[in-house]
Amino acid sequence: MNSFGRLFRISIFGESHGESVGITIDGCPAGLSLQAEDLLPDLERRKGGIQKGTTPRQETDFPIFKSGLFNNKTTGFPLTILFENNNTRSEDYNKQRSIPRPGHADWVANQKFGGHEDYRGGGHFSARLTTGLVAAGAIAKKLMPELRIEAKVTEIGGEKDTEKGLQNAIEAKDSVGGIVECLVTGLPVGLGEPYFDSLESVLAHILFAIPAVRGVEFGTGFAAAKMYGSAHNDAIEDMTGKTRTNHAGGVVGGISNGNELVFRLAVKPTSSTSKTQNSLNWETGTTEDFSIKGRHDLCVALRAPVIVEAVTAIVLADCMLLEQKIKRVL
Amino acid sequence: MNSFGRLFRISIFGESHGESVGITIDGCPAGLSLQAEDLLPDLERRKGGIQKGTTPRQETDFPIFKSGLFNNKTTGFPLTILFENNNTRSEDYNKQRSIPRPGHADWVANQKFGGHEDYRGGGHFSARLTTGLVAAGAIAKKLMPELRIEAKVTEIGGEKDTEKGLQNAIEAKDSVGGIVECLVTGLPVGLGEPYFDSLESVLAHILFAIPAVRGVEFGTGFAAAKMYGSAHNDAIEDMTGKTRTNHAGGVVGGISNGNELVFRLAVKPTSSTSKTQNSLNWETGTTEDFSIKGRHDLCVALRAPVIVEAVTAIVLADCMLLEQKIKRVL
Amino acid sequence: MNSFGRLFRISIFGESHGESVGITIDGCPAGLSLQAEDLLPDLERRKGGIQKGTTPRQETDFPIFKSGLFNNKTTGFPLTILFENNNTRSEDYNKQRSIPRPGHADWVANQKFGGHEDYRGGGHFSARLTTGLVAAGAIAKKLMPELRIEAKVTEIGGEKDTEKGLQNAIEAKDSVGGIVECLVTGLPVGLGEPYFDSLESVLAHILFAIPAVRGVEFGTGFAAAKMYGSAHNDAIEDMTGKTRTNHAGGVVGGISNGNELVFRLAVKPTSSTSKTQNSLNWETGTTEDFSIKGRHDLCVALRAPVIVEAVTAIVLADCMLLEQKIKRVL
Amino acid sequence: MNSFGRLFRISIFGESHGESVGITIDGCPAGLSLQAEDLLPDLERRKGGIQKGTTPRQETDFPIFKSGLFNNKTTGFPLTILFENNNTRSEDYNKQRSIPRPGHADWVANQKFGGHEDYRGGGHFSARLTTGLVAAGAIAKKLMPELRIEAKVTEIGGEKDTEKGLQNAIEAKDSVGGIVECLVTGLPVGLGEPYFDSLESVLAHILFAIPAVRGVEFGTGFAAAKMYGSAHNDAIEDMTGKTRTNHAGGVVGGISNGNELVFRLAVKPTSSTSKTQNSLNWETGTTEDFSIKGRHDLCVALRAPVIVEAVTAIVLADCMLLEQKIKRVL
Repeated sequence: MNSFGRLFRISIFGESHGESVGITIDGCPAGLSLQAEDLLPDLERRKGGIQKGTTPRQETDFPIFKSGLFNNKTTGFPLTILFENNNTRSEDYNKQRSIPRPGHADWVANQKFGGHEDYRGGGHFSARLTTGLVAAGAIAKKLMPELRIEAKVTEIGGEKDTEKGLQNAIEAKDSVGGIVECLVTGLPVGLGEPYFDSLESVLAHILFAIPAVRGVEFGTGFAAAKMYGSAHNDAIEDMTGKTRTNHAGGVVGGISNGNELVFRLAVKPTSSTSKTQNSLNWETGTTEDFSIKGRHDLCVALRAPVIVEAVTAIVLADCMLLEQKIKRVL
Repeated sequence: MNSFGRLFRISIFGESHGESVGITIDGCPAGLSLQAEDLLPDLERRKGGIQKGTTPRQETDFPIFKSGLFNNKTTGFPLTILFENNNTRSEDYNKQRSIPRPGHADWVANQKFGGHEDYRGGGHFSARLTTGLVAAGAIAKKLMPELRIEAKVTEIGGEKDTEKGLQNAIEAKDSVGGIVECLVTGLPVGLGEPYFDSLESVLAHILFAIPAVRGVEFGTGFAAAKMYGSAHNDAIEDMTGKTRTNHAGGVVGGISNGNELVFRLAVKPTSSTSKTQNSLNWETGTTEDFSIKGRHDLCVALRAPVIVEAVTAIVLADCMLLEQKIKRVL
Repeated sequence: MNSFGRLFRISIFGESHGESVGITIDGCPAGLSLQAEDLLPDLERRKGGIQKGTTPRQETDFPIFKSGLFNNKTTGFPLTILFENNNTRSEDYNKQRSIPRPGHADWVANQKFGGHEDYRGGGHFSARLTTGLVAAGAIAKKLMPELRIEAKVTEIGGEKDTEKGLQNAIEAKDSVGGIVECLVTGLPVGLGEPYFDSLESVLAHILFAIPAVRGVEFGTGFAAAKMYGSAHNDAIEDMTGKTRTNHAGGVVGGISNGNELVFRLAVKPTSSTSKTQNSLNWETGTTEDFSIKGRHDLCVALRAPVIVEAVTAIVLADCMLLEQKIKRVL
Repeated sequence: MNSFGRLFRISIFGESHGESVGITIDGCPAGLSLQAEDLLPDLERRKGGIQKGTTPRQETDFPIFKSGLFNNKTTGFPLTILFENNNTRSEDYNKQRSIPRPGHADWVANQKFGGHEDYRGGGHFSARLTTGLVAAGAIAKKLMPELRIEAKVTEIGGEKDTEKGLQNAIEAKDSVGGIVECLVTGLPVGLGEPYFDSLESVLAHILFAIPAVRGVEFGTGFAAAKMYGSAHNDAIEDMTGKTRTNHAGGVVGGISNGNELVFRLAVKPTSSTSKTQNSLNWETGTTEDFSIKGRHDLCVALRAPVIVEAVTAIVLADCMLLEQKIKRVL
């Protein structure tokens, strides 16, 4: 249940305030040149505390390879990568254990796992688990140097001028949502399948696994619902499959058509806000006012792009292996 | 690749103009009372030619059980259900084989499957394959009589007055997109998992498998990207998990929280429009004007609700089995 | 649960005395030349009533392709193949419903499926389901014309002179067990993985799915347990990996080594014997004498070789796809 | 490819002479009381150097929980367990890199992974990976305290007096094979499925994943091939399903029948023997005499029982979850 992928398969583990978080990648081709340093630029982008509006919690996030690497090359066997948790302040969470934080998984986790969940810092639900995703994504990117995968925040709090949207939230002393867009160029025709393993299906599956994602759309997306067919259809121009417009966002019938892959995600405002909230105290059974301590992102969308790129790369590497466009031994 | 689900697992097969389309359901609990008639109401809703704006192609769509049913009860073994294709007019498609229809999978299918695909009527890509989904969905619904799953078209061509939106398209002699919303009440707390098997992930996976779906959003969805956290968070009111608002749409941290499940889909305009289009002729290598013959839906969103309900029921039955909330023998 | 395989994936359905039995093959490459006639020789070998010692029940066993075939080539989409059941005599089974036949699944099926199982002729447990396996195997064989897969009965009732062993059983008016050996030549080096997806693991998995198989051994198998290492080890002779001896039976560390693949199966005597037996009557709760009616094989091992070849081919096609030694489009 | 199981799912990683070996267990129910000490007795049994005839390489084999445990209880999230490799002597292996050891995976690994495999001590193929299996098995056993799973060596080098068989090998200065038998009592009726997920199939799958296993048989196994049906059939005696004899070894039609589960494995002689051997040197392309250095087991069967018990427990826990006989939250 904590695994994803068919031939390039990832499995995540760990808790926010436990010993470590990590990932195992099974099915990575043998012979890929790889060292910890290759992962650092993307891991650095994921970190909080650098951009304005992100959490001050800072982890070193240095990837420790426990298996699958030999002489700085992948062996073809599972790669297990650990990230130690050093900078945890669990006492922040213990205090408020009885008030499930609105928007967070506290209450559902408690119900589903009978109180056995590690609740500190969100436990296994924490966005800290995305560290492993980013590491796997960086490896997947290395497998496909011909692709350009680029995600960015295109809107914060409804403002296309993202700096303004963020500033508004800072002034409101509140967390805020945003839109992330991802573009991929260099994709071959033919990735994805009709129906269940459509490229949109598989991408959406993992995109909705990113905490705080509430919507996913491809190409014109929700705007397509307002259009006529004659305006929406993309005329094919030549034998490479290039289309005059790209309302489809590069996927037709579930399959990549060789044009730019385009999709967008809606990211909700960080559930942790410094505003006073009113919610249930499950010890007393009544609602009460409270405010959330701990260190948090003001706009979690700001940290999403590198994660979105990572999971996109993971899906595409998997599809490329299925289509035999990446070899099992490089 | 044409299968979906973990414990309640479906596999589809068939082509639009082949002998038949069908589905196999593996993992359906034994002892469910079931006969063909139970599936007819939903199959009827899926059919074209009844509502204004849907295809005049009419199939009897009578489900033929080939296995898994004995004395009008499920046996616990795979249920295979066939729908014969009787009402096909393949010659419509043969004529235009060399001009891949914009918005359709013709071109990508040809590239991916090396010309071996059954191109008649879209072959395996055809929405006719959703017949099996609707059948499986009706069975899944029978497994969960305590749920109310209801999808409807809430917008056509940008008009919330859907009749007006449809009328506009009829007058424009063009196909048109729409929005479908699905609501589920009666869900227990605890369906779904954090990360990869989040309820949103699994639902989005199969929702994007429905032809023409271009966007999926849960709760406030894309609107959440414009909100502040204090406004978006749903305060928990009591020990049942009931929240004061339901911006989350019933899913927090990937897990159902006991409130109403709410999501929406963007459905693009039917790719087949009677308007003249200009696209590639792969025999001549040049673009040319052409128009699409055949029988088609004006607004495919109109046929989507019952399919959306079906795939939702399929996912929920699977989650309920995983949570041991449906027994293996009834 | 009724599916098997990773990239070449089969799903079986049907009951012995239901409408039909069948199989769906997902992941078969596009462009394979195929027609029903290609499957007939192997289907003919599987049939009872031809060899001495096999059941007189005769089915036409003509494969009906419901999907996945177009212009006599595979399309790359799921192939669903049906075999109608015509020659059933269910009344034989109804009479003895209350006495679960020893050696058969009657009792466990009833317990596990709460009495909802189709018990006629063994239902889904029936060896009639192997018809689909043989069909899929014949297709897998066509994908790998460079291989020679050959299984045969090497022993009946302990006699290496199989005719004698069979004659003994005929004279004893009893059913009898046997040994089947399978040899595969032409395999490339490198199929299989260490540990869970070892070639032995995957083969044994599906070999034990064949009804009546009670043991599987590779190479020297159980005899290896009596040997010293210096005698058992196969010295590699040259750069092709050819070994001087082949005690390993062509698999080392879970991976094919380029030598002949060799394995053997123990097949138990047919559970249905015409001898009087004593067993439980679950209506009365006491044991009683009874004898089995119906039409049965005297030595089910005699029908096993073509099934063993089939499942072997299915596994090997899957491994070849994983190793990218078969293309997705031919 | 390095994962196994459906609801109780294990994934192994690591190399013999790398940093560590380990396992991730996904799907373990929440609320199981667990600490490292619970795993030590079985881990101790697996170790070499204690029994006569096992490798003098000694590792501390202390399980380090990296995730999934909180307040000494399982959380319901993935358990990742590491075992550090401390006691490695890789130089032993570097010397003989060019002579693939007969019976070992050296040659096939090199061919399949293009020379990128970590060849030291067998790398990922090493039996050291079974440490994780034993840990997972100990956890699975804790989930099913009502079962008694017991495996033991019943034969060495053909001798039922195992001490004598081992002594013969010591005197011959050679490695030797053996037979391991496993018995399970306390199993409920109904585990396993017909065909692909038969209890024999799933057990055999993972049993053949244990290095050196060359044959698996259930109940009378290969002896059944010599028997008549009237002698082999187990008459059911009473409504609990108890049979008069147990030739079936507790599994009929792929499903547990409530009687004792009985199976046996053939374990080949350790491939590493101190005898001089003759094999290929792939640098020179010719064969030459050589002998194997390093620390090895004389009779690897001696270390197998606890591993056999472990994988058996893993399979049974998975089946019990599928049958909803273990809850998701304890």
